[in-house]
Amino acid sequence: MKVLITGIDGYSGWPLALHLLSRGHDVAGLDNLVTRKRVAEVGSWSALPIQSFPKRQEAVRRLLGKEVRFYKGDLGKWEFVREVLEKERPEAIVHLAEQRSAPYSMIDVHHAVQTQVENVTGTLHLLYAIREIVPDCHLVKMGTMGEYGTPNVDIPEGFFDIEYRGRSDRLPFPRQAGSWYHWSKVFDSGDVMFATKIWNLRSTDVMQGVIYGTRTPEITDPALFTRFDFDETWGTALNRFVAEAVLGLPITPYGQGHQIRGFIALEDSMQSLRLAVEHPAQPGEYRVFNQFDAAYSVNHLAEVTQKVAEAQGIHATIEHPPDPRVEAEQHHYNPIHDHLPALGYRRTRELEEALQEIFRDVRKYKRRLEAKRHVVMPAVSWRTGDNRPQLHARSAPTAPPTPEAPAVPAAPSLDPTRSPA
Amino acid sequence: MKVLITGIDGYSGWPLALHLLSRGHDVAGLDNLVTRKRVAEVGSWSALPIQSFPKRQEAVRRLLGKEVRFYKGDLGKWEFVREVLEKERPEAIVHLAEQRSAPYSMIDVHHAVQTQVENVTGTLHLLYAIREIVPDCHLVKMGTMGEYGTPNVDIPEGFFDIEYRGRSDRLPFPRQAGSWYHWSKVFDSGDVMFATKIWNLRSTDVMQGVIYGTRTPEITDPALFTRFDFDETWGTALNRFVAEAVLGLPITPYGQGHQIRGFIALEDSMQSLRLAVEHPAQPGEYRVFNQFDAAYSVNHLAEVTQKVAEAQGIHATIEHPPDPRVEAEQHHYNPIHDHLPALGYRRTRELEEALQEIFRDVRKYKRRLEAKRHVVMPAVSWRTGDNRPQLHARSAPTAPPTPEAPAVPAAPSLDPTRSPA
Repeated sequence: MKVLITGIDGYSGWPLALHLLSRGHDVAGLDNLVTRKRVAEVGSWSALPIQSFPKRQEAVRRLLGKEVRFYKGDLGKWEFVREVLEKERPEAIVHLAEQRSAPYSMIDVHHAVQTQVENVTGTLHLLYAIREIVPDCHLVKMGTMGEYGTPNVDIPEGFFDIEYRGRSDRLPFPRQAGSWYHWSKVFDSGDVMFATKIWNLRSTDVMQGVIYGTRTPEITDPALFTRFDFDETWGTALNRFVAEAVLGLPITPYGQGHQIRGFIALEDSMQSLRLAVEHPAQPGEYRVFNQFDAAYSVNHLAEVTQKVAEAQGIHATIEHPPDPRVEAEQHHYNPIHDHLPALGYRRTRELEEALQEIFRDVRKYKRRLEAKRHVVMPAVSWRTGDNRPQLHARSAPTAPPTPEAPAVPAAPSLDPTRSPA
Repeated sequence: MKVLITGIDGYSGWPLALHLLSRGHDVAGLDNLVTRKRVAEVGSWSALPIQSFPKRQEAVRRLLGKEVRFYKGDLGKWEFVREVLEKERPEAIVHLAEQRSAPYSMIDVHHAVQTQVENVTGTLHLLYAIREIVPDCHLVKMGTMGEYGTPNVDIPEGFFDIEYRGRSDRLPFPRQAGSWYHWSKVFDSGDVMFATKIWNLRSTDVMQGVIYGTRTPEITDPALFTRFDFDETWGTALNRFVAEAVLGLPITPYGQGHQIRGFIALEDSMQSLRLAVEHPAQPGEYRVFNQFDAAYSVNHLAEVTQKVAEAQGIHATIEHPPDPRVEAEQHHYNPIHDHLPALGYRRTRELEEALQEIFRDVRKYKRRLEAKRHVVMPAVSWRTGDNRPQLHARSAPTAPPTPEAPAVPAAPSLDPTRSPA
């Protein structure tokens, strides 16, 4: 199948390209490479060294004997989006090209605006280009389990049947996101659902759990490594815990650590996306997949990390700094996830086993962690709303420019006008 | 009370300024005046001639003996927003400054992006500026009943108590908007709800029904007129019907005309906003008002218009062109609206009486309708998605510029890169 991956240079995008290629699909991708810059903006880098995109293409040729086509550019540019779709005419698009960090979106007003503007604009451009150029193409859109928040009821896969005041309907499940980033994903879900309806498109909205892992069966060589972010802005809790243990720091679940989230191994996330691609939605169908494998508390993650570290000879303690986020620390969490198993999804990796692999890979690059030791702990607070002074080597958000990032100069005069007397 | 109105030059903003002034409040406002330009962009103008803002200020002084402070500028400019709030330190902000036309947002990809980017950016800027400068200020945010769509159950005021799989919670009612514009309002609702929670702000989200009318008790003189748009992009169905009748054209409800919406007279909408301002939300409270007075079908509007026209000696027929929107033409519609009556809201105007007044005002400016006769019928179709060729004197969206409006030039080269062999 002809697949286009937006955000092909990213943590999921790159292993997805490898996985789809190895399964015989024809793969092209686009990326503006901005995540590399933005991780540098907060003073960090990937713990595993990653190759430039041309070198990635070379490694794919050498190690997999395959070609991957690449377009450098930004979904914020309408003509770029149109021209890539004209050239590729994909049968499926996996849309991963979005600002993906919740803490980054919470840094200040400009990062908030930039995140929502970029993500919504890219998705709208893609939707219009699909309608115009490849209306039969299946859009697989990356969302997040975080769109739902933590309601006190079970979380269905996108829609639920309700009774209210004696009548019934099937409605989208309410979204209660927990950061500007998560809200941007909620907004995208609305736009994709609406476009699918009015233009009879095919779409799958993936409510992705937190992904963990450094390996898939295709990542057989360091030249094929995907990113491993461990700083407080770009790294997940689990990645930070591993970095802390390797650095001899305490492992630090935020707050009480009872927050529960859905998780999935990198390899199984790739399996899920492939299943979505290989079983497209019908014309006019907007379907939602809750794409996670198991729910764990943050404390559980910390304890498993501690245990795996211990087995590798690293003694780590666990400490609980205050939670910088505004989130329930005790809550119900039971999202339904039946759609992917119905397409044949089976778990292939267990958390502990993946953690052993992560430790093995990351410890080889301990010097890269040492060099960035200062970025592991939280500096961005959800509550204060303006975190610039506390941040490391941080100023305005990096390219691509959005209308309000960086800050615009003041209007010439702000005296209120009064009509002549 | 010290009130700042964003969008003070608009259809609601201006009468609200007059109403709050007449009730003794201290009123300032801001506006980028862009609606005036955008109505010109689609080849139209307000049927009732409206004064420039300096002349509006002069008329307020002359006729009401009051001052209204004005800042010309754009909520898209962060420094402008900050500086107005620094200067004014309002106790309440009524936020009306958004792109407000559904058909405008549906013209093409650039108008879609512009609408969502502008509306979300302005609201985020306002939220951050409130947090930073006037955290105790009450934000009254204009949304729309259209955020809810037309579910097959009753529509609560923002939140509802549900039972699902044996557990219960109070959740935001699901939104199913019907245009990019309506979705932008849904996005704003999410952002306002979230900011209120994390920063302990005070907010009221107004799910506004369709407003009709040319008069309030304060609009006693043509120098105080507010806009009356009648073209298919900026005018409501009712306004178009009046224009059609005055022009001797058939009245044209779209499709079968069974679509039901909530409506409220201009004067009663101003009463509602004043009540919201005078009864602020508590710190940390995000409350939702379904602000409409009665639900009518489009056919009912057409028939009452026909009847009132007849009584004024105008014979009009009713015709049903195909519906350019993608919407249910037969549906349940029973939104709850108890919150405003609990604050003392009472209906003061009836549809038929307001229509008589509208006809009296608009007929005096029949020449202004005649000059724009060609803009009353729909040219924008929700389904085709790109409507530029059919439109009147229309090119790229007008200022303020957004990242993707107007279209950006193509990237230099679009040959996919391949690594050297």
